[in-house]
Amino acid sequence: MTMISTDVLSRENDRRRADLANDYDHLGEQLARRGVDIDAVKRKVAAYSVAVPSWGVGTGGTRFARFPGRGEPRNIFDKLEDCAVIHELTRATSTVSLHIPWDKVADIPALRQKGETLGLGFDAMNSNTFSDAPQQEHSYKFGSLSHANAATRRQAVEHNLECIEIGKALGSKALTVWIGDGTNFPGQADFTKSFERYLDAMKAIYRELPDDWRLFTEHKMYEPAFYSTVVQDWGTNYLIAQELGPKAFCLVDLGHHAPNVNIEMIVARLIQFRKLGGFHFNDSKYGDDDLDTGSIDPYRLFLVFNELVDAELRQADGFAPAHMLDQSHNVTDPIESLMRSATEVCRAYAQGLIVDRAALAGYQDENDALMASETLKAAFRTDVEPILAMARLEAGGAIDPVATYRAAGYRARVAAERPAVASGGGGIV
Amino acid sequence: MTMISTDVLSRENDRRRADLANDYDHLGEQLARRGVDIDAVKRKVAAYSVAVPSWGVGTGGTRFARFPGRGEPRNIFDKLEDCAVIHELTRATSTVSLHIPWDKVADIPALRQKGETLGLGFDAMNSNTFSDAPQQEHSYKFGSLSHANAATRRQAVEHNLECIEIGKALGSKALTVWIGDGTNFPGQADFTKSFERYLDAMKAIYRELPDDWRLFTEHKMYEPAFYSTVVQDWGTNYLIAQELGPKAFCLVDLGHHAPNVNIEMIVARLIQFRKLGGFHFNDSKYGDDDLDTGSIDPYRLFLVFNELVDAELRQADGFAPAHMLDQSHNVTDPIESLMRSATEVCRAYAQGLIVDRAALAGYQDENDALMASETLKAAFRTDVEPILAMARLEAGGAIDPVATYRAAGYRARVAAERPAVASGGGGIV
Amino acid sequence: MTMISTDVLSRENDRRRADLANDYDHLGEQLARRGVDIDAVKRKVAAYSVAVPSWGVGTGGTRFARFPGRGEPRNIFDKLEDCAVIHELTRATSTVSLHIPWDKVADIPALRQKGETLGLGFDAMNSNTFSDAPQQEHSYKFGSLSHANAATRRQAVEHNLECIEIGKALGSKALTVWIGDGTNFPGQADFTKSFERYLDAMKAIYRELPDDWRLFTEHKMYEPAFYSTVVQDWGTNYLIAQELGPKAFCLVDLGHHAPNVNIEMIVARLIQFRKLGGFHFNDSKYGDDDLDTGSIDPYRLFLVFNELVDAELRQADGFAPAHMLDQSHNVTDPIESLMRSATEVCRAYAQGLIVDRAALAGYQDENDALMASETLKAAFRTDVEPILAMARLEAGGAIDPVATYRAAGYRARVAAERPAVASGGGGIV
Amino acid sequence: MTMISTDVLSRENDRRRADLANDYDHLGEQLARRGVDIDAVKRKVAAYSVAVPSWGVGTGGTRFARFPGRGEPRNIFDKLEDCAVIHELTRATSTVSLHIPWDKVADIPALRQKGETLGLGFDAMNSNTFSDAPQQEHSYKFGSLSHANAATRRQAVEHNLECIEIGKALGSKALTVWIGDGTNFPGQADFTKSFERYLDAMKAIYRELPDDWRLFTEHKMYEPAFYSTVVQDWGTNYLIAQELGPKAFCLVDLGHHAPNVNIEMIVARLIQFRKLGGFHFNDSKYGDDDLDTGSIDPYRLFLVFNELVDAELRQADGFAPAHMLDQSHNVTDPIESLMRSATEVCRAYAQGLIVDRAALAGYQDENDALMASETLKAAFRTDVEPILAMARLEAGGAIDPVATYRAAGYRARVAAERPAVASGGGGIV
Repeated sequence: MTMISTDVLSRENDRRRADLANDYDHLGEQLARRGVDIDAVKRKVAAYSVAVPSWGVGTGGTRFARFPGRGEPRNIFDKLEDCAVIHELTRATSTVSLHIPWDKVADIPALRQKGETLGLGFDAMNSNTFSDAPQQEHSYKFGSLSHANAATRRQAVEHNLECIEIGKALGSKALTVWIGDGTNFPGQADFTKSFERYLDAMKAIYRELPDDWRLFTEHKMYEPAFYSTVVQDWGTNYLIAQELGPKAFCLVDLGHHAPNVNIEMIVARLIQFRKLGGFHFNDSKYGDDDLDTGSIDPYRLFLVFNELVDAELRQADGFAPAHMLDQSHNVTDPIESLMRSATEVCRAYAQGLIVDRAALAGYQDENDALMASETLKAAFRTDVEPILAMARLEAGGAIDPVATYRAAGYRARVAAERPAVASGGGGIV
Repeated sequence: MTMISTDVLSRENDRRRADLANDYDHLGEQLARRGVDIDAVKRKVAAYSVAVPSWGVGTGGTRFARFPGRGEPRNIFDKLEDCAVIHELTRATSTVSLHIPWDKVADIPALRQKGETLGLGFDAMNSNTFSDAPQQEHSYKFGSLSHANAATRRQAVEHNLECIEIGKALGSKALTVWIGDGTNFPGQADFTKSFERYLDAMKAIYRELPDDWRLFTEHKMYEPAFYSTVVQDWGTNYLIAQELGPKAFCLVDLGHHAPNVNIEMIVARLIQFRKLGGFHFNDSKYGDDDLDTGSIDPYRLFLVFNELVDAELRQADGFAPAHMLDQSHNVTDPIESLMRSATEVCRAYAQGLIVDRAALAGYQDENDALMASETLKAAFRTDVEPILAMARLEAGGAIDPVATYRAAGYRARVAAERPAVASGGGGIV
Repeated sequence: MTMISTDVLSRENDRRRADLANDYDHLGEQLARRGVDIDAVKRKVAAYSVAVPSWGVGTGGTRFARFPGRGEPRNIFDKLEDCAVIHELTRATSTVSLHIPWDKVADIPALRQKGETLGLGFDAMNSNTFSDAPQQEHSYKFGSLSHANAATRRQAVEHNLECIEIGKALGSKALTVWIGDGTNFPGQADFTKSFERYLDAMKAIYRELPDDWRLFTEHKMYEPAFYSTVVQDWGTNYLIAQELGPKAFCLVDLGHHAPNVNIEMIVARLIQFRKLGGFHFNDSKYGDDDLDTGSIDPYRLFLVFNELVDAELRQADGFAPAHMLDQSHNVTDPIESLMRSATEVCRAYAQGLIVDRAALAGYQDENDALMASETLKAAFRTDVEPILAMARLEAGGAIDPVATYRAAGYRARVAAERPAVASGGGGIV
Repeated sequence: MTMISTDVLSRENDRRRADLANDYDHLGEQLARRGVDIDAVKRKVAAYSVAVPSWGVGTGGTRFARFPGRGEPRNIFDKLEDCAVIHELTRATSTVSLHIPWDKVADIPALRQKGETLGLGFDAMNSNTFSDAPQQEHSYKFGSLSHANAATRRQAVEHNLECIEIGKALGSKALTVWIGDGTNFPGQADFTKSFERYLDAMKAIYRELPDDWRLFTEHKMYEPAFYSTVVQDWGTNYLIAQELGPKAFCLVDLGHHAPNVNIEMIVARLIQFRKLGGFHFNDSKYGDDDLDTGSIDPYRLFLVFNELVDAELRQADGFAPAHMLDQSHNVTDPIESLMRSATEVCRAYAQGLIVDRAALAGYQDENDALMASETLKAAFRTDVEPILAMARLEAGGAIDPVATYRAAGYRARVAAERPAVASGGGGIV
């Protein structure tokens, strides 16, 4: 079953096939001069996959307003179909990451079956204790896993255990825990007691984690809390992973750091201390802007991948990060944004693969700062799009995913099936 | 008509009256040593007022969730009653600032009458073109006053003209325009054309502004747009006020600046060039956090008021700023937060009034950096609470507004009358 | 007279000539598909030049230490020779910007003659009132053009007038004024009086500015003053240019802004209001880091050039910005850093030239945020190095400037002639 | 031996004695109402001491310039005399922290004797591998303890061991290691290898640390390196302390963090995990501005002390932080700045001591965010100056240290003895 007509796909690819072959050949020749085998790079890119978040296919918003798009998915089954479109065209997003309770269904096997039909697997499960679900007994207004009240913490723990159960039924192998716990005012909570309570609650979750699962905790500097956040940075995140044990790892979201922070260095540190769990990819200029990956600072994304490729090539101990996109698509078609973001991640990976690491190490040893930095820039400046496009084409995807998606008329088709959602005027200011 | 029982008020004040008198006397003695007449300061504080935003009495939220409070106001009439509580106890908030369409009513005279009954006037009108109202013809998803489409801009202009009309009927004398227009991605809009369109639209509004009104434009660095904002900083805001004319002024929101920016200096510049329109007071640690005024960096608030008092005392040309609170109360009772925030603003004003300006000017002329800065610190360190409390008491307010409010049981009473609102789980991420 | 042996240059170019021709042809073919004439782009790039700062060829340092390099220039004559190397190899830096009193000489005609011999002209003159020169009567410890003392201000004015005189003798046509004036503590100075004094002093300078000169003022958020700076941002800078008159313009240094600020938007605003004077190019991650242009965030540099090319193509009124590098080379050979930085500026310019502006405008009008941003990304992703290299080659420069420079052994040669400088251990902390 | 005439001291104190007694009594009465015993607070304040850095008594500067002050100390003996002035008047700075090689002397016993004569002890020793000393064999231009070259690392280790030896002879019990190691460009160094080398070098130092000593490592986000720093944040700092062992602790400098970071929370985390070594107190608005403690954001300083007092009162395991000032006095008399900074630290401590912790804990348990934050604010708003002044007076110090210092004419006296230093015009830009 495919969501995009193979006729459209073929027609669109045919229009671009000759130019791609030409560009790929020339790039291959250029890379050969540098000692790089383009086909080897292409094979690695083809084997790469980044997970798509189920909530990412809906239109996002801000506290001021949400402006809905056309044909928004009504439920997780619709969402999976949208995710399938992304994978069909990019061949780079073979798994979906679910969010509970948003994606909770009565019939879990049917959901698993739907994924299999669409060729999609299930990535890490995401719990939600940052908002109150209808009929929830205890509110998370003042925290969840770190709440002053034991019953609230217990409720939050049990929700996470339920996520694990659902995930087991779906074939997931990881739980991601991000909480909004924190404070808006100095003094509102005791930093130390809050963190002790959080650690206790997380240990209760960790104890129930299956042996072949991993537990990812995610730090964030601020928002929704605006004075302090319980898991505020990688330092605290590392302490958590260390306290919990060998199945616990730190998740890095590119938008969750203080201004100017050197994120690639944090990635290197977590790799070195065997606690890098994975990524929530996106881009940002100000705060947790959740923009499309690579859209604001593509060189930063490359520098992160430079660390990842380096660790991959030297087979760093315990290195097996999970990759996921995590974005909010407020002004674009979410499918389009996710397709290009998946492509950006592949691009950074390919650029990381063509770094001349032997030369780089030599320059580093000699303190030749200029040539060392130029070595990275040379890889970054290389237009590797032919490699990405060829990898997609050979795997049955689209040379130009966005153009093909538009030509296929998918959005108009689902807009006819899925009722329009009313525009959300905030009221929240 | 009073919202808080005078019995409760008297009883609460009686408990604190003797200590207050004692503290006021001692502070008076201390200030006299420094050449400051405490009663003169008290009279100025008593005459001071800061407007309350109608939307501030509802519980705020974030894009992740909103956790409602008890007894939230259902409409502008409920909101006015809540605002009346704030003024009764603090005697510092005699006006309310409305937001259209949130506060739109069929019977405007009734609204004005309600205000009069409660002893409240109407401050600046606030338009809203950052979210779509139901049945709105053109969406503001891609902008309003700067939108690429002329019809959308016209709709936004007309909405602002309607706000002026409502304001005229209510006795308001100013319009505040804050827009969310901007972009999420480089290239999404042409900076120059967008700003030209914005200026054209604003000129259309300005032309209809009554002669005795002022037009306030408000800049903001980011959010809801995350790459660029049309009115991004005070530089652009100044250009707007200059282009529009003598009734146009710049509004400063303390949370709308880049990290580390010296806000008090911006205030000084706008005063110097006769374009300071006024303030949206709040506090913040990270972005536009909209926390209670003075809760994060009280010294910064004082430094802003130091500029304001200085301009007041030297009777700076064209100096008549409007003062308003603009906060989002996510985890506190909004009435309590607004009462203490009004008090914080009064506190900064009182501290500004007791700065020894003659000594300060002398130290500045001599480049005695240490003594100059200590002169400001000496005023800031002074605990002026007795002045504020005495001013409240003498005006019929509460020595301790929050304690009195709690003793009066207002929240429980309105909670019984106003139905609970369901918790808003985002879905927006 | 050439500083680099033509034999070495030819040999190095010969090694790379065939590959370059091949790459240039293929890129030409790719660009032709997009409707871009590669030769037209190359001609524009060949005509482009960015000025080199005389002080940039010395090794920089921090307040903690300075670690000298080999063969540092001893005076402005040595510096000009180093600058000549940069231009010979890159063919992109035909002018040098001087700093007085650092570059002050007794025999100005000899200096001008030296420049002519080396094929170098003289760009904007830079005054220095941020440090005290030996035998200076009044110290700038507490400010210069804004100093509380009139005699100090007068001294600073006269220094600027002297810079104009020297510049006239050298053929310069602009004066750049950057001051360090500001304060370290709240209260240390009166913001308004300081700015009034500054404006008065600048008017005295402006009055003496020749009619065919321009006056550039440069804003900076902080450093060397750490609480407030007199010319702190573009808003204040615009006010200055407006107050002074039509020959006064704003200079933008890429490292002088608050964290996260959208610099390209400031550039667009200054162009729109006809006050963009030019640039001090460099790159930064934290503050005014003065790193090599394009080394930290190359996409930001491209976005700035996207505005510049757009203004150039639409022939924006009054648009004639001056371009200069302004960097501190602490750990690299300054000549190498300046060569690659000049190349980065050319690269951003070339990428700006190949943006499909018709398509971009269409996407902007349709609010197609995704395709609009991809249109910019497509230009940025293009590896335009063959265009830059071909422009250099055809103008007599080097295909690979750094490799050629190293092969020529220039640094070793001057190190033998110029005595080593002692390492500067701070003492300043 | 005293540096300040006891006659002057007595006369100055006599002028303020009666008012102080009056203010102290009234404050005592106010605090008694809140259940606080003013004398108990005073005793704790009197017992408190913060170390003064020897380099702090010289005038600081920036990379642009240094403007010397009058009568600057010529050597460590002069510096100790200046430090003695600070302690005599404030009674809050009984120890001095040395910097090697700046304070290196041939006759260490004489130095120790000098300290004893002046009533000063020796706090932590500070090593310097961020600048090159004359005759140093290997340069630290490209790093020290993390340098790629083993001999350079060894030299840096040996320098630290020498610092320990000197410290042992002086009675010091701690070594503080801050390095400038890092990079200016992506790729310049391998993050992981650099940190491995650093850890190896630190282990070599740690092995030689006496059993009754502590080793403090200090993190810093940037400067002098502007792309990456080896010990960039508290996360890395914690890893270091953990790797080294039980005598290794993290030092927190208030100016070494990313913008907006919640420093008091980092303090709480380090206390909780028993790795808080101590502080370098100062204040900052932008970066590592090294301004006088409490001069920019006094509430932040209070919030840090709120954590410290809380840990002290609950006798947190392993809690024994070292307190030191670390500032750069560019525009003030260093002695005056250090006196007021010591006072600010005492003030924050006193304010921390009067927090109603039982009430605070109750509000926190009830999620009464407003009253919890007001509880802290109530302590911060209290003008505790009478407590500080009375503690000074009773210990033989000055009620008003700055006024007394000025009255004593110390600066003029030493200016006559110590030759003026030439103004340092940078040349470094």
